[in-house]
Amino acid sequence: MEGLIMDYPLTTTTILEYGNSAFKYKRIISHLPSGTRHEYTFGNLYKRCKQLANALTNKLGVTKGDMIGTFAWNHYQHVELYYGVPSLGAICHTINIRLSSQQIEFIINNSEDKVIFVDASLVPLLEKIAHKLETVEHYVIINASELFSTTLINTIHYEDLLEDQPEEFEWPTLNENDACGMCYTSGTTGLPKGVLYTHRSTYLHALTISTPNAANYNSSDIVLLIVPQFHVMAWGYPYLCLITGSDMVLPSSNLQPEAIISILQKEKVTKANGVPTIWMGVYNALKKNPPRPKLKLEEYLVGGSALPASLIKGMEDDFGIKGVQAWGMTETSPLGTVSRLQPHHHSLTEEEKLKIRAKQGIEFPGVQMRVIGNDGSVTERDGKSMGELQVKGAWVIKSYFKTNNRDNFTDDGWFRTGDVSTIDNDGFMHITDRTKDLIKSGGEWISSVALESALMAHPKVKEAAVIAIPDEKWAERPLAVLVLNTKNERVSDEELKNFLSHEFANYQIPDKYVYIDQVPRTSVGKFDKKEIRRLYAQDKL
Amino acid sequence: MEGLIMDYPLTTTTILEYGNSAFKYKRIISHLPSGTRHEYTFGNLYKRCKQLANALTNKLGVTKGDMIGTFAWNHYQHVELYYGVPSLGAICHTINIRLSSQQIEFIINNSEDKVIFVDASLVPLLEKIAHKLETVEHYVIINASELFSTTLINTIHYEDLLEDQPEEFEWPTLNENDACGMCYTSGTTGLPKGVLYTHRSTYLHALTISTPNAANYNSSDIVLLIVPQFHVMAWGYPYLCLITGSDMVLPSSNLQPEAIISILQKEKVTKANGVPTIWMGVYNALKKNPPRPKLKLEEYLVGGSALPASLIKGMEDDFGIKGVQAWGMTETSPLGTVSRLQPHHHSLTEEEKLKIRAKQGIEFPGVQMRVIGNDGSVTERDGKSMGELQVKGAWVIKSYFKTNNRDNFTDDGWFRTGDVSTIDNDGFMHITDRTKDLIKSGGEWISSVALESALMAHPKVKEAAVIAIPDEKWAERPLAVLVLNTKNERVSDEELKNFLSHEFANYQIPDKYVYIDQVPRTSVGKFDKKEIRRLYAQDKL
Repeated sequence: MEGLIMDYPLTTTTILEYGNSAFKYKRIISHLPSGTRHEYTFGNLYKRCKQLANALTNKLGVTKGDMIGTFAWNHYQHVELYYGVPSLGAICHTINIRLSSQQIEFIINNSEDKVIFVDASLVPLLEKIAHKLETVEHYVIINASELFSTTLINTIHYEDLLEDQPEEFEWPTLNENDACGMCYTSGTTGLPKGVLYTHRSTYLHALTISTPNAANYNSSDIVLLIVPQFHVMAWGYPYLCLITGSDMVLPSSNLQPEAIISILQKEKVTKANGVPTIWMGVYNALKKNPPRPKLKLEEYLVGGSALPASLIKGMEDDFGIKGVQAWGMTETSPLGTVSRLQPHHHSLTEEEKLKIRAKQGIEFPGVQMRVIGNDGSVTERDGKSMGELQVKGAWVIKSYFKTNNRDNFTDDGWFRTGDVSTIDNDGFMHITDRTKDLIKSGGEWISSVALESALMAHPKVKEAAVIAIPDEKWAERPLAVLVLNTKNERVSDEELKNFLSHEFANYQIPDKYVYIDQVPRTSVGKFDKKEIRRLYAQDKL
Repeated sequence: MEGLIMDYPLTTTTILEYGNSAFKYKRIISHLPSGTRHEYTFGNLYKRCKQLANALTNKLGVTKGDMIGTFAWNHYQHVELYYGVPSLGAICHTINIRLSSQQIEFIINNSEDKVIFVDASLVPLLEKIAHKLETVEHYVIINASELFSTTLINTIHYEDLLEDQPEEFEWPTLNENDACGMCYTSGTTGLPKGVLYTHRSTYLHALTISTPNAANYNSSDIVLLIVPQFHVMAWGYPYLCLITGSDMVLPSSNLQPEAIISILQKEKVTKANGVPTIWMGVYNALKKNPPRPKLKLEEYLVGGSALPASLIKGMEDDFGIKGVQAWGMTETSPLGTVSRLQPHHHSLTEEEKLKIRAKQGIEFPGVQMRVIGNDGSVTERDGKSMGELQVKGAWVIKSYFKTNNRDNFTDDGWFRTGDVSTIDNDGFMHITDRTKDLIKSGGEWISSVALESALMAHPKVKEAAVIAIPDEKWAERPLAVLVLNTKNERVSDEELKNFLSHEFANYQIPDKYVYIDQVPRTSVGKFDKKEIRRLYAQDKL
């Protein structure tokens, strides 16, 4: 018997058409790299995307399946690329501007980008490697000032590209399982690996993230997209906002805490996303200069690394702003879980609640998770049994781009995250570590994440990273690398050990503490453990 | 290039597995026809669905594609059928118990039901026609008391069917485009027509309805499902609740206003659904007996027919409960649009806001709509240009079951709703009438819905139905059929004409008014215009 429901592919075109039909008056506000503020509507976006599609087709010869690179900050032109490119059937490949030249070169050649759309301010990064790029035929320059010049060849300015192009374009009918976007992992271990998202996965991810249990966005929200559009499709937010009719605010390169606060204030932002380090910076800046009037910001969704309980508490107690922990990876589009208190948690103490909110939480519908213990079987959901987190779902990859390496996939079709975690009786997942960051001391596992989180709750500690160092007797021991709140402050190792002893067994407490000015960070703002290990685990000890 | 995202079909199995993993402790509460209260969890449901799947397979020989009928009220056993039957690959065909014997006989034979699950209290309705049912091999009796007896043959009690069946069952891998459920239109014009829903349409509909712009359900909600499970899959709510982790409250046959209020009170219900007539009854009962303490009910979602502005206002002003207008049809799974105020509406007067809330609203993502005027072209979105509403989408049918009749479908793939409507500049759709209910007087269209809504706002009028009556001079004229608030009350035709003249042109105002005790209703509780026309448009005038 045939299904008697219409064929209705879930594509970026569906989302764009929807945004224009249901919410054409909603706003997209960009704070451009130049400092200029730009504002237009979903209706304007719609027309410009059609102009872009015409230009790509007629002027640059782009056709279905072509890979189109972007090398840009968060702004409306980048949103136009998020829709115009895939709705045409081409693939929007967002390149992480914070990677090394070598990695960027590898990525562009590996993905075979035909055109690259690049912010004028970022052109110097490409000029250095342009002679090694094998497939790029055109560079389209965005946001160039009059003084702009470049050594790149075959360049055209974005506005010149769109100029005179018709605002009508007949979108092709797409297969929802075709690729629509691409992103590389940040490559903290080895070469970056390419991940292709499909129209279907992009649609389902964005729709699901909008639900009340997840990010909870509606047409009254004004959303600041701090997560870069060059990183995992900005967590799908440019799609999410058109589906939900939320105003979209794009900060481009204005990412210093003070700049973010000023945008939050000026645009009356109600919701935002970002990695914890961004929000730590915002929190410290707010403490120094409490905002008047109060921010309208209700909630910030955090992923990328663990949201410290101390930050959740500080932002909420001091400014009434709620932090919500989510978890995901480039390979999972990225969002897979979220932690929100359930009704039966309301009777817990504030401290117990904080502990639950600092977990990674329950999976979204469309995602499945399991934890596999050392013996290869699924662990008990008791909140204690640790093992590797594995996931499955409608927006989880089944393979990497151009590689047959199956190391990250199980034979029965699950993706191996490389995260060590537990799941409790309520279904809340908690990441205790990355497989490779776990410390094995005298046969016992010690979680670096738990130690970091506890150390950052110490009043004198601003940032803490814990790594394993070789030890003759115990095989490995934890080492804590710390940044203190003020440079001249002092704290003794004994004071810290004592502080940790409330929560940790003796063997789990680090013996050694190193004080530094700044924790090295990866291209996406996480603590760079590889670099910390290079600096402190080998030479220095 | 191959899509590199996992194949992850959207099925009822996905939803059931999700509910059990993320929310296994959430509750399903049934107020059974006997008056007994039954409560269990999503975890219990999960196990019972697996027992049901084993029983269907082993005891009744049910296999993939088999049609399984249900003839039952809203309760947990019916929810088990909503999941257990389709997750096995069979089709859950919900039969409307309020149809005529003839229609029920037609439907069961037409759909070829192999097994029928029937509430003991409803068995007499089937006994009358059992000898004419050609395909039914077994009747499974639900909720039978010890005194139960029947003339039906091949019967088994539901609990006996499940007894001793294992709680483990390996769900088959399903194609998301396979049929999962079936419902017939209520057949107010001609024979009922069968509509098949797919796993995919069911999943996408339920997920989308959960979003904040739509029904806005999360895991703190306690939801009363008033819309019968025998009617358009209860608007997808049994699926919605597992996706969102909302507690589900099922009233079975306890549908009198006082019974509903008692359940709302007792179970601390926060959200509910239902047709306007149910809510009018609840409102009148609440007025008589204001609840102490205040109900926890925040919002009721209404569809099926227009939610009168007077009811929205009364429920909100008197009891702080918000009415939200939605629109849909059996052919659209059913929900297609919803009306919620947008931020730019906040500066309007209360009356202007009410007018917007009484519209059918904007389409959900996954649905497209257009209005086709008399000249066959798409009308302007000006809030005035009327025409036939046509829809398309991921949960809209492309054909009816076992019929090649294409009258309801356009050549370019849209479903013709038969509703006459406008769309305004903000994208809000407003149904002015059913094509067949529209009154054409002297060449001008008059909306029966607008007149009914206005008349029901008159303080003395409880219910109003407006139909066309033949007229020599004008071809048709409107006739108003009215139920007054109290039996002994009087209102003059002049008073009503005067009342309507504030809003309507002279030619639009009915010349004649008929006063009756009760408006005839269809099987799903709507005003039965066919019956009203039979009673008042022909013989009486």
